[in-house]
Amino acid sequence: MKGIRVGLVGCGFMGKSHSNAYLNVAKFFPLKAKPVMSVICDKDKSSVKSFKENWGWEKYETDYKKLLKSGEIDLVDISTPNASHKEIAVMAAENGIHIACEKPLAMNSDEAREMVDVAKKAKVKTMVCFNYRRVPAVALAKQLIDEGRIGRIFHIRAVYLQDWIIDPDFPMVWRFKKELAGSGAHGDLNAHIIDLARYLVGDFDEVVGMDKIFIKKRPLPAEEAGLTAPGKKQKGEVTVDDAVLFLAKFKNGTIGSFEATRFANGRRNYNKFEINGSKGSIVFNLERLNELEFFSSTEPQYVQGFKTILVTEPVHPYINAYWPPGHIIGWEQTFLNEIYDMLEGIAENKDVTPGFEDGLKCQQVLDAVIKSAEEKCWINVDEM
Amino acid sequence: MKGIRVGLVGCGFMGKSHSNAYLNVAKFFPLKAKPVMSVICDKDKSSVKSFKENWGWEKYETDYKKLLKSGEIDLVDISTPNASHKEIAVMAAENGIHIACEKPLAMNSDEAREMVDVAKKAKVKTMVCFNYRRVPAVALAKQLIDEGRIGRIFHIRAVYLQDWIIDPDFPMVWRFKKELAGSGAHGDLNAHIIDLARYLVGDFDEVVGMDKIFIKKRPLPAEEAGLTAPGKKQKGEVTVDDAVLFLAKFKNGTIGSFEATRFANGRRNYNKFEINGSKGSIVFNLERLNELEFFSSTEPQYVQGFKTILVTEPVHPYINAYWPPGHIIGWEQTFLNEIYDMLEGIAENKDVTPGFEDGLKCQQVLDAVIKSAEEKCWINVDEM
Amino acid sequence: MKGIRVGLVGCGFMGKSHSNAYLNVAKFFPLKAKPVMSVICDKDKSSVKSFKENWGWEKYETDYKKLLKSGEIDLVDISTPNASHKEIAVMAAENGIHIACEKPLAMNSDEAREMVDVAKKAKVKTMVCFNYRRVPAVALAKQLIDEGRIGRIFHIRAVYLQDWIIDPDFPMVWRFKKELAGSGAHGDLNAHIIDLARYLVGDFDEVVGMDKIFIKKRPLPAEEAGLTAPGKKQKGEVTVDDAVLFLAKFKNGTIGSFEATRFANGRRNYNKFEINGSKGSIVFNLERLNELEFFSSTEPQYVQGFKTILVTEPVHPYINAYWPPGHIIGWEQTFLNEIYDMLEGIAENKDVTPGFEDGLKCQQVLDAVIKSAEEKCWINVDEM
Amino acid sequence: MKGIRVGLVGCGFMGKSHSNAYLNVAKFFPLKAKPVMSVICDKDKSSVKSFKENWGWEKYETDYKKLLKSGEIDLVDISTPNASHKEIAVMAAENGIHIACEKPLAMNSDEAREMVDVAKKAKVKTMVCFNYRRVPAVALAKQLIDEGRIGRIFHIRAVYLQDWIIDPDFPMVWRFKKELAGSGAHGDLNAHIIDLARYLVGDFDEVVGMDKIFIKKRPLPAEEAGLTAPGKKQKGEVTVDDAVLFLAKFKNGTIGSFEATRFANGRRNYNKFEINGSKGSIVFNLERLNELEFFSSTEPQYVQGFKTILVTEPVHPYINAYWPPGHIIGWEQTFLNEIYDMLEGIAENKDVTPGFEDGLKCQQVLDAVIKSAEEKCWINVDEM
Repeated sequence: MKGIRVGLVGCGFMGKSHSNAYLNVAKFFPLKAKPVMSVICDKDKSSVKSFKENWGWEKYETDYKKLLKSGEIDLVDISTPNASHKEIAVMAAENGIHIACEKPLAMNSDEAREMVDVAKKAKVKTMVCFNYRRVPAVALAKQLIDEGRIGRIFHIRAVYLQDWIIDPDFPMVWRFKKELAGSGAHGDLNAHIIDLARYLVGDFDEVVGMDKIFIKKRPLPAEEAGLTAPGKKQKGEVTVDDAVLFLAKFKNGTIGSFEATRFANGRRNYNKFEINGSKGSIVFNLERLNELEFFSSTEPQYVQGFKTILVTEPVHPYINAYWPPGHIIGWEQTFLNEIYDMLEGIAENKDVTPGFEDGLKCQQVLDAVIKSAEEKCWINVDEM
Repeated sequence: MKGIRVGLVGCGFMGKSHSNAYLNVAKFFPLKAKPVMSVICDKDKSSVKSFKENWGWEKYETDYKKLLKSGEIDLVDISTPNASHKEIAVMAAENGIHIACEKPLAMNSDEAREMVDVAKKAKVKTMVCFNYRRVPAVALAKQLIDEGRIGRIFHIRAVYLQDWIIDPDFPMVWRFKKELAGSGAHGDLNAHIIDLARYLVGDFDEVVGMDKIFIKKRPLPAEEAGLTAPGKKQKGEVTVDDAVLFLAKFKNGTIGSFEATRFANGRRNYNKFEINGSKGSIVFNLERLNELEFFSSTEPQYVQGFKTILVTEPVHPYINAYWPPGHIIGWEQTFLNEIYDMLEGIAENKDVTPGFEDGLKCQQVLDAVIKSAEEKCWINVDEM
Repeated sequence: MKGIRVGLVGCGFMGKSHSNAYLNVAKFFPLKAKPVMSVICDKDKSSVKSFKENWGWEKYETDYKKLLKSGEIDLVDISTPNASHKEIAVMAAENGIHIACEKPLAMNSDEAREMVDVAKKAKVKTMVCFNYRRVPAVALAKQLIDEGRIGRIFHIRAVYLQDWIIDPDFPMVWRFKKELAGSGAHGDLNAHIIDLARYLVGDFDEVVGMDKIFIKKRPLPAEEAGLTAPGKKQKGEVTVDDAVLFLAKFKNGTIGSFEATRFANGRRNYNKFEINGSKGSIVFNLERLNELEFFSSTEPQYVQGFKTILVTEPVHPYINAYWPPGHIIGWEQTFLNEIYDMLEGIAENKDVTPGFEDGLKCQQVLDAVIKSAEEKCWINVDEM
Repeated sequence: MKGIRVGLVGCGFMGKSHSNAYLNVAKFFPLKAKPVMSVICDKDKSSVKSFKENWGWEKYETDYKKLLKSGEIDLVDISTPNASHKEIAVMAAENGIHIACEKPLAMNSDEAREMVDVAKKAKVKTMVCFNYRRVPAVALAKQLIDEGRIGRIFHIRAVYLQDWIIDPDFPMVWRFKKELAGSGAHGDLNAHIIDLARYLVGDFDEVVGMDKIFIKKRPLPAEEAGLTAPGKKQKGEVTVDDAVLFLAKFKNGTIGSFEATRFANGRRNYNKFEINGSKGSIVFNLERLNELEFFSSTEPQYVQGFKTILVTEPVHPYINAYWPPGHIIGWEQTFLNEIYDMLEGIAENKDVTPGFEDGLKCQQVLDAVIKSAEEKCWINVDEM
């Protein structure tokens, strides 16, 4: 098979990590069809030009609609802010282009449902970039669960803690406006741990949650605060959550607790979960992503304990592509791994997971939590 | 001042740890009034006799009413199951006897309120044995918070995880019957972390929670299952929770999550909390009770990190009584520390904390969570 | 059997920890013969009197010779400084008294040899108080090795790190004078890890080592510095090591490295060892003495890892005497455990380990290292 | 400045990690002169061809002499086995080509000295690829030391532990033959920790060491064992060390211990050091390379402790080029970092460290340890 021509939309932080993945994936993995870095697209012309140069994209484009109609790409990678996902994805599908889309899939369940429908009709491959499924240690956790080493799952407790906006002088940027960002920590961080819970445990049934804004007004950036009297900071109102917590019941009887916050001092990127089952437990922490903790109660009592598996052996998921044991990988490799899976899916005409349906199911949980916080009661996820 | 004559009721697990404390506390701490191990009381005559011999109590008694009316004790230590706390405490107060009572204080808020009232009228000193306030590392956490080193508190997340009843063949004992035990993990474990949260963060406002029974029927013990056909295990119904989770809003704006379970495989006695504030964070885990993790964002960015303080320095709370730095103490010392505080309170005629009012406030939270689980909505704690 | 009458010599730090053990051991362990706290002995009259009162010894004595000839004790516990061990032990043996002696056994191999000979002739039970053999986690390590779970041992690396004399103004006390203390970190700390290595690995063959004094002069304490001009600190010369490092070859082919220092900033009482064998590895750290790390290469590759065993289960050595799983013990329990073993040895007329022969073998290694540091070459341990 | 044309010799494991670095370095760092991946060279034609294709080298060559005389490269990267370093480096220098050379620099001090002399005369830039200086956490450790945060250094203890040849059936490959490999764990692993010690602490004065071969004969690979009777494995003799331990005195008074082994079960790539000074301590472990532990005794006693710094902040060395805080990097980034420093050195005509002189000094320590093991005494490093 010939190469797969990629068009990447968005040259921010995610654009960087995805470009790095397209550049390197074929050096490490034996791909059936290599990616061709065809077109980088962003509406800001000067950024997109220098981005093209730096990462070696063949050409650039400033209008994603032209890109999607050009016939020059087989796969579009949507790395733009949340609010534009639906529009781009729908047009891509209608043009028969496969789609990798950053998370969360959409602004709400309705948008997500439309995306699922259009993609299904168009028979294009879809993937939502929940890259943490592709951490080798997380994939190993899945394997241990599937093998029955954890047994019946009783509990999951998952948190995603960050701390970058504790300073009340951190300015009022678009991310804190509901109409642009949709939500705050919730869509950004809870989306990840909801997807991991679905991957590892199963489907959600009911949730009850709460949201919180700790700092309600923030100073406007210089450009927006022009009219203010000198020496006086003008402030804008934060309309998205700083933190969202919720409890959950799963369809299989597991119960769980979840928390996303940007106010956990000292936790830079602390995506951590613990799962307890009838035969064992597992613990994962993204800040030590090369490790998985595993407890098994099937061993003799006197040698039981939580074991730290250094997930860098050739027998571990994805690792054979990289370095010898003990030579750890970084956060960026999660993107190589997911792009590898996506490209193989396209080459072999197989569905990729998590696809848009998974993105929708995650969105339903996100929406149910929001509704629960508003109505102060439990919400059934399937009704969203 | 002369010694303080102690009567201890209950010679189970807690009776053992309290006896050890009365025996040793004066060896380590410079007490104003030493405890006299006067009377041990338990309704089981053969246990109480051998217990008296082993721990060196002066005499034994099988009827707590006689004990309380004997005029032979200044302080009663109630280490019996939950259901008898109120009756013993009320009679003790009426007889002018100071009271140390195991947690949770009562079966419900109404009982607890009565205990508070009677004790207040009788002007006796009261203490609820929330011994984890007396872990040196926890007392240090309190000190750091009071000094302002954590700043405004945003989050607390606390769990108390155990794993001793995962086996479905673990028998149906009294602890699993609601009428005798009141609740399962909730009163046993959540009581502790609710008290710690009140100690460190402040008063609860609202809660929403859920409970879960993972194993609904358990084999009856041999003595209760006499009529069963040979080879067939007769089962009884579990009527208390295996796990209870809840979310909380505090009066000062802090938000938190809490969980107690006996189904967290590999977690033997994992009472862990994390608190995040505007200036720092703290983490504590009872399985490593000599350590406190502390993060401060007031340090230069490039040397910030979670620090493991080995809380064994003479400058740390309670430690000067024990051993040199790095010579760790055990779980049992928490009881020496609390008994020390209680005895000093009596000797100096000062109130001790946590007193019965704290026990009541903890009980209100416990009750609110139960009600929330039944009604599937948020419950205001003050209304309980 | 009737009780075992104990005479304890020395009421310093070790006197305190041993008294605590005699007071409590019978509360926890089912002893065949309980200890009677008969006589406490120390040449300082005022200390010994208040010590007697505090710990409940029946009487006190200021002359250990009178004590040993009194016929009032069955067991002498020598908790005095190193320089007096031999004299007390020899006289005790000659009077038919069993002996527990603090480590290191003697000032040198010659003294130790004499002690072994006299004790053997007198047929008294002897024990050297290498209490760290009695840490449950260390006893478990021994069990794992004996079961073959570690396989052939290749490596041991052991350190005992403290940090209490880094301040150059820490005064010139007797511990820094060779004639009184014998050595510095070497006899104090290396003695422990040498004994642990013999216990776990086997006998030493050859060693090569070095010693170091980082701070050569220290201010004299006020009472010794009377003649100095005002405002000028008079200094005395440190004649013992601050740190001693050595490499070792064992008779069974294992190789090892050892280090004792009082200059490891931040390490309060960091007695840590790692052992690597053909089938597994173990790691222990006294600052977390309730834990043992264990790696087994006999498990499937993808779930291998270092496991943290929380050594608080009833099936673990000594633990059944104490508290439920996860309720950790402290440093002081190591003394209860060793006194328990000693008392049982006497009651059952069985030898106790480590006995004086083990103390001698440890002394030979200590002496060989000193000689190696002086002669700058490898020294055969058996020649000492 | 135009690009820097690179010729890489050797397409094994190191060739792969260096190619990855040349491919990616300019994507992350703002280079003054970008590398041009001109020529890949290896004597095995089929490997070198596919390697060229995979990594995108412009052309391939099988004869390094032709490469060096071609005039087509500005920088040669020597990633071949140890025995060929000198020959290639000398010819490169004579042709005015800058040199990056894998460690250890040479087979012995004499070779290394020759390499230093030739390179100095030719005025080419040199770098020895001690990539662990370029771990951000290690560079931060250096910064903390240079700032005086550790104070006077008393101790370093460094180990490099691996476990890949414990199985006695691991075959007899060239790495176990002295004439080809020079040494075993010593040159491979001790070379790294000696260089780190020189970087962080200073120059070595004297050493005493020992080596050990645990498994003296290993089965010959099939191709070399042709004549053996069927069913009987023929064995070859291992002539390099499995482990080398040594003690060291530094010129500034620091003392240290060092160990390299391939027999530490469970330690996959455990390059760990601890440094203790008068004001603080640092600990690093390559298996968690994004973290640095730091203890400072200048803080108030009650909040002292070892702090885990997550070295992923923009203010940390090299990190600004990569991802946001908490998004960890992998082992491979150490090569991007060192190549970046080398390319900048060439572009700005500045010396790069560690240069060939550092490689020589490391070699002298390596040689002194070997001699010490043979002669069983201390060896002065400067005499090698």
